[in-house]
Amino acid sequence: MTKVNLNRVKLLISCPEKPGIISKVTNFLLEHKVNIVHFDQHTTDPNSGIFFMRIEFEMKESDSSLEKLEQDLHVMGRDYSLDWQLSSNEKRKRMAIFVSKADHCLNELLWRWKSKEIVVDIPLVISNHPDLKEVVEGYGIPFYHIPMSHETKEEAEQKALELLEGNVDFIVLARYMQILSPKFISYFPNQIINIHHSFLPAFVGANPYVRAFNRGVKLIGATAHYVTNDLDEGPIIEQDVQRINHRYTVEDLKTAGRHVEKRVLAEAVSWHVEDKVLVHGNKTIVFT
Amino acid sequence: MTKVNLNRVKLLISCPEKPGIISKVTNFLLEHKVNIVHFDQHTTDPNSGIFFMRIEFEMKESDSSLEKLEQDLHVMGRDYSLDWQLSSNEKRKRMAIFVSKADHCLNELLWRWKSKEIVVDIPLVISNHPDLKEVVEGYGIPFYHIPMSHETKEEAEQKALELLEGNVDFIVLARYMQILSPKFISYFPNQIINIHHSFLPAFVGANPYVRAFNRGVKLIGATAHYVTNDLDEGPIIEQDVQRINHRYTVEDLKTAGRHVEKRVLAEAVSWHVEDKVLVHGNKTIVFT
Amino acid sequence: MTKVNLNRVKLLISCPEKPGIISKVTNFLLEHKVNIVHFDQHTTDPNSGIFFMRIEFEMKESDSSLEKLEQDLHVMGRDYSLDWQLSSNEKRKRMAIFVSKADHCLNELLWRWKSKEIVVDIPLVISNHPDLKEVVEGYGIPFYHIPMSHETKEEAEQKALELLEGNVDFIVLARYMQILSPKFISYFPNQIINIHHSFLPAFVGANPYVRAFNRGVKLIGATAHYVTNDLDEGPIIEQDVQRINHRYTVEDLKTAGRHVEKRVLAEAVSWHVEDKVLVHGNKTIVFT
Amino acid sequence: MTKVNLNRVKLLISCPEKPGIISKVTNFLLEHKVNIVHFDQHTTDPNSGIFFMRIEFEMKESDSSLEKLEQDLHVMGRDYSLDWQLSSNEKRKRMAIFVSKADHCLNELLWRWKSKEIVVDIPLVISNHPDLKEVVEGYGIPFYHIPMSHETKEEAEQKALELLEGNVDFIVLARYMQILSPKFISYFPNQIINIHHSFLPAFVGANPYVRAFNRGVKLIGATAHYVTNDLDEGPIIEQDVQRINHRYTVEDLKTAGRHVEKRVLAEAVSWHVEDKVLVHGNKTIVFT
Repeated sequence: MTKVNLNRVKLLISCPEKPGIISKVTNFLLEHKVNIVHFDQHTTDPNSGIFFMRIEFEMKESDSSLEKLEQDLHVMGRDYSLDWQLSSNEKRKRMAIFVSKADHCLNELLWRWKSKEIVVDIPLVISNHPDLKEVVEGYGIPFYHIPMSHETKEEAEQKALELLEGNVDFIVLARYMQILSPKFISYFPNQIINIHHSFLPAFVGANPYVRAFNRGVKLIGATAHYVTNDLDEGPIIEQDVQRINHRYTVEDLKTAGRHVEKRVLAEAVSWHVEDKVLVHGNKTIVFT
Repeated sequence: MTKVNLNRVKLLISCPEKPGIISKVTNFLLEHKVNIVHFDQHTTDPNSGIFFMRIEFEMKESDSSLEKLEQDLHVMGRDYSLDWQLSSNEKRKRMAIFVSKADHCLNELLWRWKSKEIVVDIPLVISNHPDLKEVVEGYGIPFYHIPMSHETKEEAEQKALELLEGNVDFIVLARYMQILSPKFISYFPNQIINIHHSFLPAFVGANPYVRAFNRGVKLIGATAHYVTNDLDEGPIIEQDVQRINHRYTVEDLKTAGRHVEKRVLAEAVSWHVEDKVLVHGNKTIVFT
Repeated sequence: MTKVNLNRVKLLISCPEKPGIISKVTNFLLEHKVNIVHFDQHTTDPNSGIFFMRIEFEMKESDSSLEKLEQDLHVMGRDYSLDWQLSSNEKRKRMAIFVSKADHCLNELLWRWKSKEIVVDIPLVISNHPDLKEVVEGYGIPFYHIPMSHETKEEAEQKALELLEGNVDFIVLARYMQILSPKFISYFPNQIINIHHSFLPAFVGANPYVRAFNRGVKLIGATAHYVTNDLDEGPIIEQDVQRINHRYTVEDLKTAGRHVEKRVLAEAVSWHVEDKVLVHGNKTIVFT
Repeated sequence: MTKVNLNRVKLLISCPEKPGIISKVTNFLLEHKVNIVHFDQHTTDPNSGIFFMRIEFEMKESDSSLEKLEQDLHVMGRDYSLDWQLSSNEKRKRMAIFVSKADHCLNELLWRWKSKEIVVDIPLVISNHPDLKEVVEGYGIPFYHIPMSHETKEEAEQKALELLEGNVDFIVLARYMQILSPKFISYFPNQIINIHHSFLPAFVGANPYVRAFNRGVKLIGATAHYVTNDLDEGPIIEQDVQRINHRYTVEDLKTAGRHVEKRVLAEAVSWHVEDKVLVHGNKTIVFT
């Protein structure tokens, strides 16, 4: 959440539990003379589970280099069967935003981006409607209108892929009202973040606020999750709720819902950008 | 939530919307020289909806009588097709508690009862297990152990009904792990409060915490609702949630869940006792 | 929070408790053939306190007129010593916003305004810095830069007053970093809303986040209140908090704080616009 | 929060930041063949701050011994100027509870203790009033009534110290309405947990709910903190709040307050018992 520190590097590691793995990694980092700032670890089972680690560190420039460290990581990763990922703050993540007509999530993301709360590059915004073109371009961001119907879906996604390929690291669906195809999703595994307007798994599917109204719930919620082929079933990153009462109409629920949605989505995006989210099956480990 | 004031009377009214109904009722109360303390109103639609009203008032004893007011209410209620209910704090509600083995909700209810936060009489506690006998009797409350299996259900419910009949106004299922029959429920319409250990409608049915764990939710919840024949579908009175993280085991979820459950159930019971909950179909209006 | 309904009228009344006041008012409204939608009431003491009432109603146009009703209210108000206020949704409130350099509250207010969540006219934004001119004018709202120093305060406020007089109904200080003089405040009694970046009365005064950091609190908060001559002591409209942990730097607290501030301020402004807030001494009654 | 695992050991370390400290410690643990389950770390400044670490591990019994590990820790601790603390779940912490007349915090603690949510031994409860004797003894815990007035304070504390010495590891003030002397506190540095009935630093001192009522706050809170010689200024462990509205009387605030107090205190005690709280000056690091 801090103003970004360009010297910070984040190393994410996951692997099956094995004795001495923490020691191995910390020794490795000591040899490379980095300065550990944050160290987080989780294991699903200390005897036979999966091990997850997030280390945020700073490099003393004169003494060592990130390139060397990365090369050596390749060797260690292979020797120890580690999944790992290294991100330096020097290299900003590139985020595409997909929108439809609703602008509340978009506005929140763009404001946090402009305020440097979310430090990314935004090479483009894609929409199946033209409505938000002016807003997006007002921020100096290219806007692409790619209409999409059931018939044109494959073609439209192909068009989007061409725009995205090599230009973005992850995608945020900021109330994008189209379902992406498995093929499209396969290009961005655990790199597409969606906001669902309910407290999942309550009210999966369409019209959650109408159904929340009819059910008479006392809290409404929103859920940010990674997109998988199973609709509304992807790994949950963040959820929050808002208290309502019997006076709220469906319209009121939607209004209150917008406030939760934008907050929850923006938090999830922040954490993703800061490499705080690790995926484990259909669940997430979030080191906040 | 206040210490109970014996002079307080609560009048609940519901009826189809009609012009002048508020005026009619307030004039009626003025004529009976009562002192209105709280006045709450809700309409599902000001033109053609259902109208709900809760009035809490005090009587000046010398000038008028509750009996007279109640008689006149019968007349007005008939003339205007009102559903109404009159409760005086002088006459405590009588609450039965049903438990199984878990004691967290029971303990919270009994503590609030002993502390006079929940002002009711508790003529008895019924359980399908003997485990909590000592705890209950320690509070000076009769405890009845009525075992229940699939085969003995009808008989067991009959036994319970005999104990309850004429002795209690409402029932709290404080983690009672049996499903009551439609016949039993029909004796206590909107007078049985259950606590469900999930944020309904998420995780209806059995083992919600195991399923919450598997789904990887970031908040767990609890729901207090009136019992109807549709399992987990009755009118919701209160819900709340608790933030959790990836470190929580299923056991941890259950522990955290107990804290939410007892809080949510106790609040719902308080509101029911204070006549703050009106039922409208499968929803509630709660005047807090 | 709903989309605004132009036929809605809101009547606020306060007076010393007297017998029959509710009946008097509801009869009055019945005679004027209005359709009561919401009725809220509060008394600080049913025997000798102050009585507060908010009634939201709809008029059937053919049968009656708001002008007539208002005339008759003057008579009744005089006879019964009522403080009252009548607002029709047909006549939008006019809101001025005062800002300095921070734009998070401004952005939230303007977004909610553009989205018609907050239905007001915004005739102008005034700032003691030029920084936010472009943003404000991008929304088509006049922006006035009025620098202010200790020496020029009187003159600057005079300039502001000239711009405001007759043009606005209330003022929102959206992180405006100047203290207004008693003289200025006297022109807008209980019509200036400020957002204080702490959970008042904790950390009154300057640099609340630095002090929160040093004190090691586990939650930070924000408070929206009406401005009075006693700095940070005006009637509180709304407060909320955000959980933090030991990892938050002062910068992180400020970031998290911005999110609470904008949410709390926007809610308070919504309620003020919808005439849901009544002031009683240094406290508020909020009918949500 | 889990059911206690007797093989778990918790190692807390703090020291001035120095390069390689994490590596040093993890190598040390690897040599002793322990199985790391949780690893948490915090630094106040990666270059020149204070470093904090909490490691929870399991020992494989055949291969090593806790005694040996502890001996070696003494050596490493001296060599590297570490503050450290080693706690095995095999050896339960011993907790004394101090109460006065209010029983809500006591009841919550005793229920969580009996339910094995808080796994400690409770050798005794001390009170300056006799009221809660029966409740405490009902749980099979010795109860000592030590009256205390301004005049008898020194003597009373001496009496308490004699009962406590060698018998308890930490003390919980569960709404104990006496101020302990610096001398008494010096025997239990950062080992006395108090619950303050406000959201500190708001409403330090006496009668916080009356003052909260008068100030018209919209949330009330509670704060669990370690006791130091500066009244209400000790390191905060946990805080939480509860939403209230204009209808709440001072009595209602106290009732709502009790619910927050007991929850906040019990959480803080849980964390202390599980060695999740490290103190740094007047702040805490809580690894949850």
